[in-house]
Amino acid sequence: MSEPVFAGTTRVLGIDPGLTRCGYAVVDGRGPGDVTAVALGVIRTPAAEPLPQRLAALRTELAALMDEFRPAAVSVEHVFFQVNVRTAMSVGQASGLALAEAAARGYEVAQYTPNQVKDAVAGWGGAAKEQVQKMVQARLKLVSPPEPPDAADAAALALCHLASAPMRAQVAAAVARPKAASR
Amino acid sequence: MSEPVFAGTTRVLGIDPGLTRCGYAVVDGRGPGDVTAVALGVIRTPAAEPLPQRLAALRTELAALMDEFRPAAVSVEHVFFQVNVRTAMSVGQASGLALAEAAARGYEVAQYTPNQVKDAVAGWGGAAKEQVQKMVQARLKLVSPPEPPDAADAAALALCHLASAPMRAQVAAAVARPKAASR
Repeated sequence: MSEPVFAGTTRVLGIDPGLTRCGYAVVDGRGPGDVTAVALGVIRTPAAEPLPQRLAALRTELAALMDEFRPAAVSVEHVFFQVNVRTAMSVGQASGLALAEAAARGYEVAQYTPNQVKDAVAGWGGAAKEQVQKMVQARLKLVSPPEPPDAADAAALALCHLASAPMRAQVAAAVARPKAASR
Repeated sequence: MSEPVFAGTTRVLGIDPGLTRCGYAVVDGRGPGDVTAVALGVIRTPAAEPLPQRLAALRTELAALMDEFRPAAVSVEHVFFQVNVRTAMSVGQASGLALAEAAARGYEVAQYTPNQVKDAVAGWGGAAKEQVQKMVQARLKLVSPPEPPDAADAAALALCHLASAPMRAQVAAAVARPKAASR
């Protein structure tokens, strides 16, 4: 069983989708700068297993994470570019499972590109991977950079979602507001 | 409720994965040339909906198909090449849902490339799409070519799996046989 989530806390599950290594991070946010890592890790599926069994195993693990930590939102990396189509297919398969599982549970689901994540966490969309890892370590007050890197990437995704929440709330309020001026 | 499956019949669910249109076909095979279409169709998810909700809806529809028709095997198109990464991602997401759902249920799951399907159904890996559709129509004794083309592609996938079953059985038997000669 996980720790109880306190009122005023937003719990975000960050997912860096992949079939061989799928990074995940559960981060609690209680306001600007007040964030805590609840869980960090990687789901691995054995490369020797057939693809359908690996996908089924990944789906089971993702569902178990959501069951255990009950996040308010799930933040998944949005990959536009991949060096080869084979990688794009397996990242697509893994991300599809995560997005469908989260949406089926009625969770808020967000996708961010790697550049959006770097911008939100390291202040610059072109930041190096190491800079992002250092910032994740600092923001989550960890004694060492999260390992493996997939877990750090997942934590950065969760932090990105928490950082963009105030802006999203403003946009939602602006959209909901009656357009008095335009009439 | 669907028709009962008779003994000696192999029921295959063919899936042509896609997010906007996901073709499916349920085909019963009772021996060489003795095949029947039980269901043919397309699952559509509205392009205006957010991606996670579309994926969750597709997953629900695929699960409902498997619940209703209880296939012995699921045959899914294996896409290597896509014109762009965006398409590869969404085909990957849709195929991942189908493969995971089938494997989680313990069904036999097979993937075939478009060329393998064309070869099995039209006798030539380079056959035109229209030739494959005509062959699917003839093999399933349909009054017109299955529409839309995604449903025809799904039917071809199911036929491909049924056609390759005798070969797969021979390979499995050869692998299982004690290697007396090599000792």
